[in-house]
Amino acid sequence: MPRLIRPIREMQRAADTLRREGKRIALVPTMGALHAGHLSLIRLAVFHGDVVVVSIFVNPAQFGPREDFERYPRDLPGDFAEATGAGAEIIFAPEAAEMYPENFATSVTVESLGGILEGKSRPGHFRGVTTVVMKLFSIVRPHAAIFGQKDAQQVAVIRRMVSDLNIGIDIVVGQTVREPDGLAMSSRNSYLSAEERRQAPALHRALTLAGESIRAGERDAERIRRLLEASVSSEPSARVEYCSVADAETLRELTAVTPGTTVLVSAAVWFGSTRLIDNVLIEG
Amino acid sequence: MPRLIRPIREMQRAADTLRREGKRIALVPTMGALHAGHLSLIRLAVFHGDVVVVSIFVNPAQFGPREDFERYPRDLPGDFAEATGAGAEIIFAPEAAEMYPENFATSVTVESLGGILEGKSRPGHFRGVTTVVMKLFSIVRPHAAIFGQKDAQQVAVIRRMVSDLNIGIDIVVGQTVREPDGLAMSSRNSYLSAEERRQAPALHRALTLAGESIRAGERDAERIRRLLEASVSSEPSARVEYCSVADAETLRELTAVTPGTTVLVSAAVWFGSTRLIDNVLIEG
Repeated sequence: MPRLIRPIREMQRAADTLRREGKRIALVPTMGALHAGHLSLIRLAVFHGDVVVVSIFVNPAQFGPREDFERYPRDLPGDFAEATGAGAEIIFAPEAAEMYPENFATSVTVESLGGILEGKSRPGHFRGVTTVVMKLFSIVRPHAAIFGQKDAQQVAVIRRMVSDLNIGIDIVVGQTVREPDGLAMSSRNSYLSAEERRQAPALHRALTLAGESIRAGERDAERIRRLLEASVSSEPSARVEYCSVADAETLRELTAVTPGTTVLVSAAVWFGSTRLIDNVLIEG
Repeated sequence: MPRLIRPIREMQRAADTLRREGKRIALVPTMGALHAGHLSLIRLAVFHGDVVVVSIFVNPAQFGPREDFERYPRDLPGDFAEATGAGAEIIFAPEAAEMYPENFATSVTVESLGGILEGKSRPGHFRGVTTVVMKLFSIVRPHAAIFGQKDAQQVAVIRRMVSDLNIGIDIVVGQTVREPDGLAMSSRNSYLSAEERRQAPALHRALTLAGESIRAGERDAERIRRLLEASVSSEPSARVEYCSVADAETLRELTAVTPGTTVLVSAAVWFGSTRLIDNVLIEG
């Protein structure tokens, strides 16, 4: 029987009970507004745990002061139905006032990976992510946690945190789910106007093109970045924030694509007032 | 049968086994060079767990570049004998190279409490402490952790971290153990020359005097600080780094001592080239 849990203490007790019963807990952390991408992570989680917990928390700490925290879509009843339909047994939706009480002062930071790419565009973003994920790990005490490949840098940052702090949790990464025209599923797609929505698949097309150029033998990373930028910029409403060709683990920008390294080709692009990110992973 | 464990993986397995057996784990984190103060914490831990784990790790991350990391006393065989004699079943002494591998990049910071007092004198010190304690908590997975009141600010910082990150571990604080002349037990006392050792009890005498002045009705915090400073400065080799009269929980410096607040009177004082800290807690 699926349960909605809001108090932190109640979630901790539920986790303790599950662990005492020898159950494996798989956590899918989300900010709600669940779409097909989240649902595929929940279905993946079913293979990694006896009990799937989906957390729903629009985390104020990972939004910048001028970002979309206020207008970020929220639909707890709809999310509850979707998540439990996909296999979740517990929906954990804590209150911000309980997550960040007065005098809250602690943060978890991943130095080398958190300040580049998304972290450069969004100062403090990854500190907000790692801090809330650390809290969720302590509260839900999962054996495995599932994240989406769409947020590739988030995956790299969380893997680093889990390794550095000796947190014995398996990090499982689910494939990006896409609309039929290639646009990556994102809660932020709902902000797009009809015209912007029509242009937005250019981001995935450009990333695919860049990936194909690597497969065809292109080794000059800067040429790949320029190809990526030129391709996405062909849409009039697109404004590129960054284009990156980096080592997938260290996220260091590459000069040359060398055989044997896994390459993360990623970009952040504005369509009108909506900021979208996407990426492809290529074996160099 | 007491065990010495060095590999992190082995400690994690031992902790998993103990937890599966339903045993309560009590952790005493130390930097080794165990003295009577540590031994009293270990004896206290026996009351808070079925199995006492003492970690011994001279943590490079909590020493500043000009501090005493290199000359900090180390005696693993002696510590093993002392700790097990006091009731420890596992001595966990990890290697620095395994605790901080190449590419290590994560830190845990407690903003408001970490930058004042000791944190002001020793930039980065508490980030080093909270990061290593978080790692030890993940590795040893204790139900309770025992810290000494001598490091009062460390206790406040760790309590804040445990609360903020929802780490379900009981923090137990053990009384400061003193030499017959009042000097707080510290591994750093071994650095003192005979003459400095003779003068060092002035620190505890001054703190006691300040505490007595509060009990006698003194309410002006600045007058208490001045009394403390003048008293300890009566010894020729003493050089005061700070004198503090603060709220024991928030560590905010007080202007006036108001009834009902617990007051932490603390100081850091150099005797020659050795830096000592000590404190007393007074009900205002």
